[in-house]
Amino acid sequence: MALTPTDVKEYPNSYMFDIGMPSLKSGDIKVSVEDENVLVISGERKQEEAKEGEKCVRIERRVGKFMRKFVLPENENTDKVSAVCQDGVLTVIVEKLSPP
Amino acid sequence: MALTPTDVKEYPNSYMFDIGMPSLKSGDIKVSVEDENVLVISGERKQEEAKEGEKCVRIERRVGKFMRKFVLPENENTDKVSAVCQDGVLTVIVEKLSPP
Repeated sequence: MALTPTDVKEYPNSYMFDIGMPSLKSGDIKVSVEDENVLVISGERKQEEAKEGEKCVRIERRVGKFMRKFVLPENENTDKVSAVCQDGVLTVIVEKLSPP
Repeated sequence: MALTPTDVKEYPNSYMFDIGMPSLKSGDIKVSVEDENVLVISGERKQEEAKEGEKCVRIERRVGKFMRKFVLPENENTDKVSAVCQDGVLTVIVEKLSPP
């Protein structure tokens, strides 16, 4: 979880997932829906290649693969999922189904 | 520290500090040098204002003020400090003094 702290907020017509992912870009992250109602966010923060003459003094930022799964409520429209990555935060919006 | 995980790397002519700060922009962060050899990085991740009809389902991302201090080695040139914030990572570069 430390790699992917997430805020989830509900709005009248959608759910929004805000996931802190510093240094990751859209291409490093996969967003999908499995089993019809499970939102899956996965990816990898890779170790950067050492530059010439580089010496690591302190390493606190975590690297490695991550995966988060969120079971979605029944009223979500999993055909309407959008994702955007900005300033190290991935925002995923899942629209709710219109009431019948 | 959870708000500001930092990697420190040394190069032949400089030190580089990479600090994960998702959602923060340059204007939210202050970088300064105090007591001639202490690099101070501070700022605040503010609670976002709730939008109309918003309901918090889960809150994992931390908000609040933060401050990190790093004692710099004697060979650093604290007149030559640069900082840039991109993709939620603040990169501070402190050049070394040229050898006499």
